[in-house]
Amino acid sequence: MYQINELQAIINKEIETRKIGREPFSLYDPINYSLSNGGKRVRPILTLMACNLFSEEINQAIDAALAIEIFHNFTLLHDDIMDKAEIRRGKPTIHKKWNENTAILSGDAMFIKSYDFLFETKTTKFKEVLQIFNHTALEVCEGQQYDMEFETRKDVSEKEYLRMIELKTSVLLAAALKIGAIIGGAGEKDADLLYDFGKNIGLAFQLQDDLLDVYGDTKTFGKEIGGDIVANKKTFLLIKAKQLAGKDDKELLEKFLNDQNITRNEKVSKVTSIYNKLGIKELTQEIITEYNTRAMNQLQEVSVQYERKTELIKLAESLLKREK
Amino acid sequence: MYQINELQAIINKEIETRKIGREPFSLYDPINYSLSNGGKRVRPILTLMACNLFSEEINQAIDAALAIEIFHNFTLLHDDIMDKAEIRRGKPTIHKKWNENTAILSGDAMFIKSYDFLFETKTTKFKEVLQIFNHTALEVCEGQQYDMEFETRKDVSEKEYLRMIELKTSVLLAAALKIGAIIGGAGEKDADLLYDFGKNIGLAFQLQDDLLDVYGDTKTFGKEIGGDIVANKKTFLLIKAKQLAGKDDKELLEKFLNDQNITRNEKVSKVTSIYNKLGIKELTQEIITEYNTRAMNQLQEVSVQYERKTELIKLAESLLKREK
Repeated sequence: MYQINELQAIINKEIETRKIGREPFSLYDPINYSLSNGGKRVRPILTLMACNLFSEEINQAIDAALAIEIFHNFTLLHDDIMDKAEIRRGKPTIHKKWNENTAILSGDAMFIKSYDFLFETKTTKFKEVLQIFNHTALEVCEGQQYDMEFETRKDVSEKEYLRMIELKTSVLLAAALKIGAIIGGAGEKDADLLYDFGKNIGLAFQLQDDLLDVYGDTKTFGKEIGGDIVANKKTFLLIKAKQLAGKDDKELLEKFLNDQNITRNEKVSKVTSIYNKLGIKELTQEIITEYNTRAMNQLQEVSVQYERKTELIKLAESLLKREK
Repeated sequence: MYQINELQAIINKEIETRKIGREPFSLYDPINYSLSNGGKRVRPILTLMACNLFSEEINQAIDAALAIEIFHNFTLLHDDIMDKAEIRRGKPTIHKKWNENTAILSGDAMFIKSYDFLFETKTTKFKEVLQIFNHTALEVCEGQQYDMEFETRKDVSEKEYLRMIELKTSVLLAAALKIGAIIGGAGEKDADLLYDFGKNIGLAFQLQDDLLDVYGDTKTFGKEIGGDIVANKKTFLLIKAKQLAGKDDKELLEKFLNDQNITRNEKVSKVTSIYNKLGIKELTQEIITEYNTRAMNQLQEVSVQYERKTELIKLAESLLKREK
């Protein structure tokens, strides 16, 4: 069985080897910049791991793994334009380093490249792989659309929020696993179990992200605590707090969210105190545990020996304990 | 044999039937708006016609034809953002009617949908079709990148310009034909001949566009004459004029291009008079005829009876005589 760091090294090497070194450089340089800009390579590692559950020949899944990683980075590139983000992984985003038009067009070219890799995949279930990839890509767009819509909506429900993060984050982790499994020769049931495992891990991961923004350790979280609160971001915590708060707390919450005259730290501290009062931390932890448990049960059902699953379990654990 | 207007009706009906009527509407409505917004459907008609050269079953090429039309409209959508265009086919562009973020993301979703249709194509040469589509899509991006780069460059050569329009316009017409031919059962040689035919028609078409902007009839051209001159657009005519002009004419040309104090009409008239002096109109007509002749020779070589080719010839002629 391949280990996480071995797989990561394989992915990084392949990305380096397959750089696009031709004209127009102004189109391809941003793509290379985006792909070389690190990242944990979680999705392609999942693809190779899922393949490795059923086969020693992980090489057959490398093109699909790269396709998924390139697609993921393409979505980040376009999302960064839409979100006006200036920094990604400690470096200027493409639309800041180059310009917005370059970011749009290089993103498009990058997306096309992801299909180039996908089309190289050798499997008897080629068409199924294409369809999963495409269906998932469309869902990721839907997730981003909902995320943008929610910014200007006041009544986002818990259910809607969970569906949004499922589309924006979870389905790609799920598809990465399912595609790897299919290429490795998994049966339909195992492939579907791995899909569901990935989906639940993804949900747990995103909720953990919401939680860490408020309750994380600055040292391991890697950024200042409370960013979501300051930005009035509709996280799971805020939605749950609004749902559970009585009339008075609800009014207080709205007051703090809209008060232009309190300092950053005051705002974070006041909103957190309401979260504390309502037990939002524990509630969120519970639901994370629930998704995690579901995921582990699904992985357990996959019809390969336990020993083959240990690396996947390690990766899932590292995601949930991760520093961002 | 199907006629142009029959094929156009088939395409329009299929586009209408396959509208995406689900949530998030804010993601899919712009796609439907873009696809319903008319257009001559030249590319998908070419796909069906090329298929029809070799087979009566044009239905087998409909998915690929739609994929190409959707891809084409996706490029227009993103190009309109980059070019800050406000009107497309007489209606507000997507980023004006909605906003830029919606235009980026709906464009991405539209691009994914084009692959959905492509993947439905039934042919024994499925992988070849995928590869032609993808290769062409990347070339179209390259063409757009060069087009944007040329705006800020002063030394664009004739060769570079021709390569740019080949990438931006011609290769998609060429690929539309080749893909249709392959699906219809054409041999490799015929498919390649149709590709080259399409490429040359595309070049002739684009050069005709440059020519009509200066020498067209306002009534049939549908927009004011001289738009490219006013915008200092590096068309074939301007590049050729700069190349052929002596020292004095070159200086005059530069003077008129950069003079902020002359009226629109003066600028158009002065630049046109230099074009006239240098015989740019005739030169451009010659090269258009050359590409057109090459195209027709290539079509002649395609190994099907002449009668089967008449609709394709009609379409090519209508493109070159077209009102814009």
